[in-house]
Amino acid sequence: MSAETEDQRRTERAAMHRALELAAAPGVPPWPNPRVGCVLLDADGRTVAEGHHRGAGTPHAEAAALTAAGGRARGTTAVVTLEPCDHHGRTGPCSEALVAAAVRRVVYAQADPNPVAAGGAERLRAAGIEVEAGLLADDARALNAVWTRATELQRPFVTWKFATTLDGRSAAADGTSRWVSSTAARRDTHRLRALSDTMLVGSNTVAVDDPELTVRDDRDQPVGRQPLRAVMGLRDLPPAKRIFNDRAETLHLRTRDPHEALEELWSRDRRHVFLEGGPTLAAAFLRAGLVDEIVVYVAPMLLGSGRNAIADLGLGTIADALRPTVTDVTVLPAAPDVAGEEPNVRLTLRPTFGDDPTTAEGRD
Amino acid sequence: MSAETEDQRRTERAAMHRALELAAAPGVPPWPNPRVGCVLLDADGRTVAEGHHRGAGTPHAEAAALTAAGGRARGTTAVVTLEPCDHHGRTGPCSEALVAAAVRRVVYAQADPNPVAAGGAERLRAAGIEVEAGLLADDARALNAVWTRATELQRPFVTWKFATTLDGRSAAADGTSRWVSSTAARRDTHRLRALSDTMLVGSNTVAVDDPELTVRDDRDQPVGRQPLRAVMGLRDLPPAKRIFNDRAETLHLRTRDPHEALEELWSRDRRHVFLEGGPTLAAAFLRAGLVDEIVVYVAPMLLGSGRNAIADLGLGTIADALRPTVTDVTVLPAAPDVAGEEPNVRLTLRPTFGDDPTTAEGRD
Repeated sequence: MSAETEDQRRTERAAMHRALELAAAPGVPPWPNPRVGCVLLDADGRTVAEGHHRGAGTPHAEAAALTAAGGRARGTTAVVTLEPCDHHGRTGPCSEALVAAAVRRVVYAQADPNPVAAGGAERLRAAGIEVEAGLLADDARALNAVWTRATELQRPFVTWKFATTLDGRSAAADGTSRWVSSTAARRDTHRLRALSDTMLVGSNTVAVDDPELTVRDDRDQPVGRQPLRAVMGLRDLPPAKRIFNDRAETLHLRTRDPHEALEELWSRDRRHVFLEGGPTLAAAFLRAGLVDEIVVYVAPMLLGSGRNAIADLGLGTIADALRPTVTDVTVLPAAPDVAGEEPNVRLTLRPTFGDDPTTAEGRD
Repeated sequence: MSAETEDQRRTERAAMHRALELAAAPGVPPWPNPRVGCVLLDADGRTVAEGHHRGAGTPHAEAAALTAAGGRARGTTAVVTLEPCDHHGRTGPCSEALVAAAVRRVVYAQADPNPVAAGGAERLRAAGIEVEAGLLADDARALNAVWTRATELQRPFVTWKFATTLDGRSAAADGTSRWVSSTAARRDTHRLRALSDTMLVGSNTVAVDDPELTVRDDRDQPVGRQPLRAVMGLRDLPPAKRIFNDRAETLHLRTRDPHEALEELWSRDRRHVFLEGGPTLAAAFLRAGLVDEIVVYVAPMLLGSGRNAIADLGLGTIADALRPTVTDVTVLPAAPDVAGEEPNVRLTLRPTFGDDPTTAEGRD
């Protein structure tokens, strides 16, 4: 390997780190798209322009960088965190734009995980552009772990969240459940809700608990972008329920079948479902093998009776118990501005009972 | 304050740290006695002798130090972690021994918590010995937190331990429960059992689960000193049950009343009961306000049905939930010598629903 090539590799690696940094810009994910960053380098390895994707309907990272570079894009190396797209969506294909701008070389990290729509690299090569794939691919994949998995599965990624007492109860015998979780745990739930594009509950939960199902900040005020509120079930829902207020969009999925529900949500460009119950709906998703991640808040509380956190799973003996892999355990200290609360424990788990070769650890 | 006095204080403080270190010697607690250490200092602040208590029937710390010092004990300052006892037990009162040895001054840390039998300091003062109390008292109390609390309550301290799935189950629907906890969690349980002097279960647990209820090491071999095995309940027990094997003593408490059971155990010099279930017995202790500490192992497992980790507590609404204080959360990684297991989470809690001004954090 020549010294020049080593220099080039070092420069491109540094540029990829920068592109990853651009892609990871603060804010909610740009659903239904992935986070992507792009850096254009001239022949001397100097940065000509940068770009990252800011959300659906706005330019892709490559397009943003090409626009910023204008005529200086000619002959550059495009360093990009994801294989350039090759399809006509709301914006034109990035592969065509790179060809049109006469870029000399493209280095990308993660290959397009779409099992049907990939092909950006091939089109670039066909146009005579040098293409190198895989640089820092794991970092790039971690940046969009949920999006990647959803794209591979061609259905939304499902995070099932529940809160439980130490003895497995989500509500007391009289149905009261405010609050099992601490303020800190509930705030953490809102943080996770904000990272999804869809919150899903069963119609029974709407009927009984009447949740608003919005994302609210630490002062309990609704944030700007709200995920879709989806309710699943056959029964009609009273329009006076809070889920139908004007703080976010709401969709009623008239099915009890998790597969059908996810298919409908996918067709509406939904990539990450935050499933919040109730216990029967969660059990249906678990039994269908459609839970990709479990987040559970354990409150140090004992009830001795009440509503079970999870409904019957049809498992009769200990050998059949679901044994997901633990990816994280975090103690959430009591919120400093609330008196008399105890730490809660959050466990994040990855089911191993379905087809699930990947993880979502890096998703926020 | 004269320089001499400051020197003296510094020397005595250092000696008290040493006495605490002696008291905390490795090994199981010297039930039914507390851990105690003693250092004898001459007029120049030099150590003349040291002693610590090694277990029931052996000399108290002061006696051990006095014996080691012989005639050199005369005129010394005895620095001791606990107020010298003033009662005739299996050994004579330490107060008398200190007087007889013509000790000049006694500095102790923790006052005798026994509400009826204290008085060592008074007897010493009456004999013309200088007495100073309270030096590093909190450290000394922490060293014997369980013993202290038991002595104050005049009943054994009760640690309730249970293991649960994430959904509050201690066994599957068919009764199988081996294993809910990981190997690491079960080893940790044996470590905690060894720190107690009594393990307690209900007769139903013996009938159904047939536990051996011994302390075993990481290779599953029984350790030398075994706590008493106590079974509580009215029914006769089949003598073939493992709890009656010859690996430890066993006591059948023919009562369903937790107060009666603890009274009987106290009369047998028992100070620390490790309550291991089942759910109904644990609920009886909780309802009687007789649980001083809760240790729960949470296994990242879902069953959806099966035996509840805790029986009905008569609590109907969320506001009545038991909300113990969290004193510790520890993630127990899977044992390196066992394949395919997940981390378990151990929570240690201090009930706040009874009269419980103290903690047991420092007990091991």
